[in-house]
Amino acid sequence: GWVHHSSSLSSSFSTAWLVVRAIQIFLVQIGMLLLEIGSISPKNTKAMIIKNIGNSSISAICFYLLGYGFSFGVDGDDFVGWGGFATKGELFSNATGGISYNGATYAHFIYYFCVLNLVPTIVSGSLSERTHVVAYFVVTFFISIFITPVVMHWAWSHKGWASYHSRYLMDTGALDFAGSCVVHVSGGIMALVGAYLVGPRNGRFIGERVNVRMPRQNVTYAALGAFFLWAGFYALNMGTIQNFDGEGVNALGKIAINTTICATGSAIVVSLLTLYKEKHIEPYSVVNGICTGLAGSSAGCATMTTEGALITGLLCGAVYFLLSCMLCSSGIDDVTDVAPIHLGGGMVGTILSAFFTTQSFYKIAVLDSGVGTPCGAFYACEGLGWRLFVANLIFLIAVSAWSLVAGIALFLPLRIMSLLRVDKITEDAGLDFISGADVELKRFN
Amino acid sequence: GWVHHSSSLSSSFSTAWLVVRAIQIFLVQIGMLLLEIGSISPKNTKAMIIKNIGNSSISAICFYLLGYGFSFGVDGDDFVGWGGFATKGELFSNATGGISYNGATYAHFIYYFCVLNLVPTIVSGSLSERTHVVAYFVVTFFISIFITPVVMHWAWSHKGWASYHSRYLMDTGALDFAGSCVVHVSGGIMALVGAYLVGPRNGRFIGERVNVRMPRQNVTYAALGAFFLWAGFYALNMGTIQNFDGEGVNALGKIAINTTICATGSAIVVSLLTLYKEKHIEPYSVVNGICTGLAGSSAGCATMTTEGALITGLLCGAVYFLLSCMLCSSGIDDVTDVAPIHLGGGMVGTILSAFFTTQSFYKIAVLDSGVGTPCGAFYACEGLGWRLFVANLIFLIAVSAWSLVAGIALFLPLRIMSLLRVDKITEDAGLDFISGADVELKRFN
Amino acid sequence: GWVHHSSSLSSSFSTAWLVVRAIQIFLVQIGMLLLEIGSISPKNTKAMIIKNIGNSSISAICFYLLGYGFSFGVDGDDFVGWGGFATKGELFSNATGGISYNGATYAHFIYYFCVLNLVPTIVSGSLSERTHVVAYFVVTFFISIFITPVVMHWAWSHKGWASYHSRYLMDTGALDFAGSCVVHVSGGIMALVGAYLVGPRNGRFIGERVNVRMPRQNVTYAALGAFFLWAGFYALNMGTIQNFDGEGVNALGKIAINTTICATGSAIVVSLLTLYKEKHIEPYSVVNGICTGLAGSSAGCATMTTEGALITGLLCGAVYFLLSCMLCSSGIDDVTDVAPIHLGGGMVGTILSAFFTTQSFYKIAVLDSGVGTPCGAFYACEGLGWRLFVANLIFLIAVSAWSLVAGIALFLPLRIMSLLRVDKITEDAGLDFISGADVELKRFN
Repeated sequence: GWVHHSSSLSSSFSTAWLVVRAIQIFLVQIGMLLLEIGSISPKNTKAMIIKNIGNSSISAICFYLLGYGFSFGVDGDDFVGWGGFATKGELFSNATGGISYNGATYAHFIYYFCVLNLVPTIVSGSLSERTHVVAYFVVTFFISIFITPVVMHWAWSHKGWASYHSRYLMDTGALDFAGSCVVHVSGGIMALVGAYLVGPRNGRFIGERVNVRMPRQNVTYAALGAFFLWAGFYALNMGTIQNFDGEGVNALGKIAINTTICATGSAIVVSLLTLYKEKHIEPYSVVNGICTGLAGSSAGCATMTTEGALITGLLCGAVYFLLSCMLCSSGIDDVTDVAPIHLGGGMVGTILSAFFTTQSFYKIAVLDSGVGTPCGAFYACEGLGWRLFVANLIFLIAVSAWSLVAGIALFLPLRIMSLLRVDKITEDAGLDFISGADVELKRFN
Repeated sequence: GWVHHSSSLSSSFSTAWLVVRAIQIFLVQIGMLLLEIGSISPKNTKAMIIKNIGNSSISAICFYLLGYGFSFGVDGDDFVGWGGFATKGELFSNATGGISYNGATYAHFIYYFCVLNLVPTIVSGSLSERTHVVAYFVVTFFISIFITPVVMHWAWSHKGWASYHSRYLMDTGALDFAGSCVVHVSGGIMALVGAYLVGPRNGRFIGERVNVRMPRQNVTYAALGAFFLWAGFYALNMGTIQNFDGEGVNALGKIAINTTICATGSAIVVSLLTLYKEKHIEPYSVVNGICTGLAGSSAGCATMTTEGALITGLLCGAVYFLLSCMLCSSGIDDVTDVAPIHLGGGMVGTILSAFFTTQSFYKIAVLDSGVGTPCGAFYACEGLGWRLFVANLIFLIAVSAWSLVAGIALFLPLRIMSLLRVDKITEDAGLDFISGADVELKRFN
Repeated sequence: GWVHHSSSLSSSFSTAWLVVRAIQIFLVQIGMLLLEIGSISPKNTKAMIIKNIGNSSISAICFYLLGYGFSFGVDGDDFVGWGGFATKGELFSNATGGISYNGATYAHFIYYFCVLNLVPTIVSGSLSERTHVVAYFVVTFFISIFITPVVMHWAWSHKGWASYHSRYLMDTGALDFAGSCVVHVSGGIMALVGAYLVGPRNGRFIGERVNVRMPRQNVTYAALGAFFLWAGFYALNMGTIQNFDGEGVNALGKIAINTTICATGSAIVVSLLTLYKEKHIEPYSVVNGICTGLAGSSAGCATMTTEGALITGLLCGAVYFLLSCMLCSSGIDDVTDVAPIHLGGGMVGTILSAFFTTQSFYKIAVLDSGVGTPCGAFYACEGLGWRLFVANLIFLIAVSAWSLVAGIALFLPLRIMSLLRVDKITEDAGLDFISGADVELKRFN
């Protein structure tokens, strides 16, 4: 009948929407590559490229074989999923509407692969220019196969203990639609642990922690990177709307506006702070300001008011600037400011989304909200006012703890086995030195 | 009932369409950044990046707070809109279909932000390498908050005096679907005024206007920029179709073809002309030829015949070449040939769209065409033949006058207050000199 | 009635889908430009840019005027199409649903233009740094106007002898949804013929074919190129689903997964093989591994199992590595490894898709499959088991023969007329030498 036909078109559209947003998130990978290459010395460019292509390749195979099953497999429990490994099993074969497999699950897979794939890229950003390529790949392997899938299960599966589907936690579940906490806080903490355990680059700090600015090869690459990240984050944030049957689509314009306002607000604050401190606007910092605002926009882009997004952006910028200054005097060498950007922005986003979310926006963005729609602490709603804040806080602490333990469990054994860091000669000569036998034009890398 | 359900899906789709096209227009910003950085000396790269990120940031906040209200606020009159400031008010809260806010208006907002955001980027392109960053930001502020919103109101709001919705002007309204006149002519004129008032770069002209070619750092960036612009213009031009309820979607393929043919036709003409004049094909000129064809395609891409688009493209190329030669001997230093590209292409597009539009294409592209569908002067239509031409001519003159006055009102006070141009030492050392204290690898900027 | 309305929305969506995928394929052009520029000496950069913009421009005009008619014109026969030239005739004007032209045909046109446009770009990639620009443009002209349109007609028109619509060949037709054979094998063979006839670059081989690595200016460009290619191939492969009326959309997620797994599998194999042979992972090779996997994914992305895609990818990587090594000792100078990538990947994809296709996936992806849905040789299906393999093998041989003859017919006369190659002085000085009179910063090209 017509119901079926119309539903089927709407569900076709939902599937297409999710896949297209997924592949647009690919722009974030391009942005990350540009940001990272722009921020390092030319002598390590090739190693960086191998690392980034390798990361995506290993992630893809790992998430295909096992990761997705640990995230969204329906036979799991509160803590971890089970089933649907290698795109097999009920989840994928359980056909909808007379066809032989479930196209919506395949779309769901590719979207969450593109989200998951950001985590190893974030983590490796802090480790550039002195870390062994084998270490990168081991870390990527474990992140993609288990560490991040578990966190995704907590937040986004139907059974996860912090999921807004299960609504187990505080009756609301945690609010983290596009990954401020799942992706950015988690990645930022592992990056920080890694940067600490791998140690600073030779020459980065002198004696009593005197801070030396290391060569950064191309500010244009970095700026382009920020723009591609920006373009990709629209897709990431809008991908939180996954169903065209209902009202969710009404939130799309709002998501795009909130993302824009949050990113630009952050950039403006960072510009003013660097102008105040260094007497000129520092482009690498402004670029990072954009990125911090984007990381902060993900949790609540669909449910926040726009004035809330503006305040989130302004705070993201300030937190970035503060953390970046603190890092410089901490003796930790985080090459592309991963922790200030992703941990800083992610924390601000996770917390503030629990303040600036309105009940009516939440209702539109989350289709299965059921009874008792949650809201942020700044907007009253049937006595649920502070629940979302508590839920997000608990989730933030849990994810931080998990990521801290995972980071130590990943990097410490590698360090003990001396697989974490290249030797001093290789580092000084550049990681690309081993491939230096060819006649490549060195000055153009 | 079914009517409602089906309509709601179609309207969901329209909303998603507009938002996705909007964020794809972001590629134009990336293209502009690459074009501009590729066309300047490396010593001014950082200033350019700060300028471009700053432009987008300021534009976003301004358009959010006030600009959109002046463009599309429903309480306005023929000249300027009023209402909907900061995404508040009836326009945004007036819910459709039982939800608490109007998602379509949010989508509309983000689309027109992405269009508006092109104007300050166009204007600043002519001023590179010697203009003070404060001047850029002041100019961007006023353009985004009032100058361009007003022109958008004239052409695209339901009440504007030249709007094809109101059909007040000549009973047809002006035909400028994607902004050949609103964006490109207007931006081009302000850029020209700015370039004239800021004066040429040191060393650009010698004595009796002997023309010196200034260093341009990277032709690959420029070429990539043109390709991204090209990709983004597909979105810009296809965004003229904003409603999937009717027949408009049938025009999409035609729009893409016309855009392609217009851009490539222009590139071929410019190639042949530079080959004839300089005995080799000049890549920067070919790149600009593409851009000119794109600027010219916007007005009539949805309503022109494809042979019309081809002729428009050929003429765009010729006009670009002519204006670019004229500029060289005029003593005005327009760094990235903004005026030949945007003013030239925009004028050609605005005029020729009034010749090559057919009535049947117009009917498909414009849903509310009502009685007496207009047509171009080359195709007879119920006695309306030349009306569109007269309407477009009047609109072109009005926009030009407005932009000329605005340009003078923007740049003259800045010049008088000595805020327009950096001092000679800074210019010669490079605008990035102030940030030269770091150990950045200068040769890789 | 509702049937009409609902159908019309679905058909609107199909049109929009195809156009948007088409313009996303544009990213492949950007990727190709970056790959090529990254792999050559800086002294030939401008010539490369002129070549690539020129290719697209000439292709667009040729396909508009004649090419599309030879591909999909309905008055043709098994071998070549006829009609619909310059977007005129029944195909375009035959209106659907009361409007004055057939929007779906325009969408079809732009999609296949974007596919066709890849072929001259592939062919010219092998010829860089010593070929005359006139030769490029002559080759592009004939490829876009006739050579590739004919192959597209064979495989993808309703009448073509190898089409899966006509099902004339072996009762199944050849399976090449997104062009592994039509685009990549065909382009790869013409590129190989061209590279052989134009001869190696000066200094590329010494005496007894000692292999000299030539300067490659920028590995970052090459890596970025691969990423953009990757992003664009999602669109290319997903564009095989052209209709939202039926079940095809269910295949989208699967296509994206298969594309990802095939590309990354190939990259991993190439990484391991270069690590084994050269004792380090060679980034240019890994980049090419990605591209080979993408070329191999196109034929069967919609119909293969994901384990089939993984095996296809692994084999793509191995074949790339083998062919690349063979080329080095063959005396043929293929600048960007076009033949190993496109011919190698395309052949693997064309053959293996005939093994790993399942009947149920085929049914979903191909709407007009009618009776006796084909399947791959590894999955039994009503006695049709090996037919698809035979059909694909015949098609592969036919396309290879056609491309070989076309390649000779294109390049041999150019060589005889001495239009193929620039003189030795120009080659050594760089093709950009002719434009060397300006004051461009040479070291930044």
